[in-house]
Amino acid sequence: MRPVLSGQFAKVAILGPGLLGGSIALALKQRPGPALRLWTRRAETLPRLRDRGFSAGEITSSLAEAGRGADLIILCSPVGAMPGLIAGLVSEHALAPGAIVTDVGSVKARVVSELTPMVAAAGAVFIGSHPMAGSEQGGIAHARPDLFERATCLLTPLLETPSAALERLEAFWRELGLQVRRLAPGTHDEALARVSHLPHAVAAALTLAALGPRPEDGALCGNGLRDTTRIAKGGTAMWSEILLENRDALLGPLRNLNGILGDLLVFLENRDQEGLAGFLREARELREQLDRPL
Amino acid sequence: MRPVLSGQFAKVAILGPGLLGGSIALALKQRPGPALRLWTRRAETLPRLRDRGFSAGEITSSLAEAGRGADLIILCSPVGAMPGLIAGLVSEHALAPGAIVTDVGSVKARVVSELTPMVAAAGAVFIGSHPMAGSEQGGIAHARPDLFERATCLLTPLLETPSAALERLEAFWRELGLQVRRLAPGTHDEALARVSHLPHAVAAALTLAALGPRPEDGALCGNGLRDTTRIAKGGTAMWSEILLENRDALLGPLRNLNGILGDLLVFLENRDQEGLAGFLREARELREQLDRPL
Repeated sequence: MRPVLSGQFAKVAILGPGLLGGSIALALKQRPGPALRLWTRRAETLPRLRDRGFSAGEITSSLAEAGRGADLIILCSPVGAMPGLIAGLVSEHALAPGAIVTDVGSVKARVVSELTPMVAAAGAVFIGSHPMAGSEQGGIAHARPDLFERATCLLTPLLETPSAALERLEAFWRELGLQVRRLAPGTHDEALARVSHLPHAVAAALTLAALGPRPEDGALCGNGLRDTTRIAKGGTAMWSEILLENRDALLGPLRNLNGILGDLLVFLENRDQEGLAGFLREARELREQLDRPL
Repeated sequence: MRPVLSGQFAKVAILGPGLLGGSIALALKQRPGPALRLWTRRAETLPRLRDRGFSAGEITSSLAEAGRGADLIILCSPVGAMPGLIAGLVSEHALAPGAIVTDVGSVKARVVSELTPMVAAAGAVFIGSHPMAGSEQGGIAHARPDLFERATCLLTPLLETPSAALERLEAFWRELGLQVRRLAPGTHDEALARVSHLPHAVAAALTLAALGPRPEDGALCGNGLRDTTRIAKGGTAMWSEILLENRDALLGPLRNLNGILGDLLVFLENRDQEGLAGFLREARELREQLDRPL
């Protein structure tokens, strides 16, 4: 008899396996654990899943087959498609009472408030997850079983979330190598707007300002420009969705940044060496805190 | 008899050896080559130079001793101190006719226009150099002989610069492992404002916007914020000097960036998915060009 995964799930359904869902599935296959069902709507993804070692029995394009009997369902689609997937599972009678439904999206408040009552109506529990791993290269082709090692998974339960389900889901993520941390959905979105979504927006804007006028001057750049703009290579469909999804939390930090750049312009216009040095010193001290172990 | 360095200098004086000047000196010591003289005004630097393996005879705090007989003088001080160093050498009769004087500064137009006639009046030749290497960690303690390997050195001659001196200086930089490239001083400053100084300014501003409101949210960031802000750890005295020195060329790109961020705000305010995706796509294409071999 194979020992079960510590989260004690019998069947895990992964809906929309790309970089994140595919990496979860690859990690689960390396462990003695639950039955896996990978669902994709797109016919062209089926052979790619076979290429990554998933058997015909583990892959399906039937939402009913994926969801039926699953006690953990992980939504890995774009955030906008998630309510439709839940509605599809419900109409197929493929969302079992007592099942846990989670997701891997980067923005949480709206998805938690929309999905929680839909899933609860079927007698199941929705808990938002945000496993913080990824790369500029998305898609199942880049999935890897160790993507989550030493990464952090932010969970965004509500006050009414049953604690047994929450602890079970946390045990599942820990089993995959992630550290878990709980945050309220709105707090998550405000913090991520500043420390994740803002840097993506700025990397794109900086690329346009630095290289737009004369792309050939890129030959003169050092590692500074390369590092500050690397994440501008991220998938544009995914990132435009994330930035718009978290628009309400992102507008404030973006306006704040514009104000900070305005201060910098004034220091330069006034040749204010002391003001400029103080500005750079404050930034340097904040940045150095990031490198210190917590 | 030791073979001489290809640049055929008999004595190289390095004024103000920190990260760059110290690395040049360490690289020269590894090669059969010219006599070295490292000059520092600061008494506390003398023992640090001894620690890095320079002999008492190679170190001096006398500008006259450093310059006398040197056929290559490399100014490694802050840009603002360079005219004073040349004036000091001239008043000590320690700037030999026929000598080549160069520097390692990141901004060129003003220093070239100020130093060229001062040096020419002594019968010597000034040619601006910008060896593009460095790190967040400055100072002689971080100097290393291989700092320049595969880096680029931008030289900023004028139309009237004697070509024999220019070729001799280029051979010197090549000997240290640098690729050389010529640019007019003003062209240099405009390009570097965009591809080097702007990223530094933006990394500092982004750090303040991302982490200023709640520094503890740094615990939630991934490599995106780390990479986009890493250069904000650079020395604040050096960078405030560079940004102010190149202020005229930097103001335009900074205002341009503020405009680009304004466009981004409008896309978000209007929930303009198409506009936002186009913005990110244009940035991504420009950024991907940077990774392609030229």
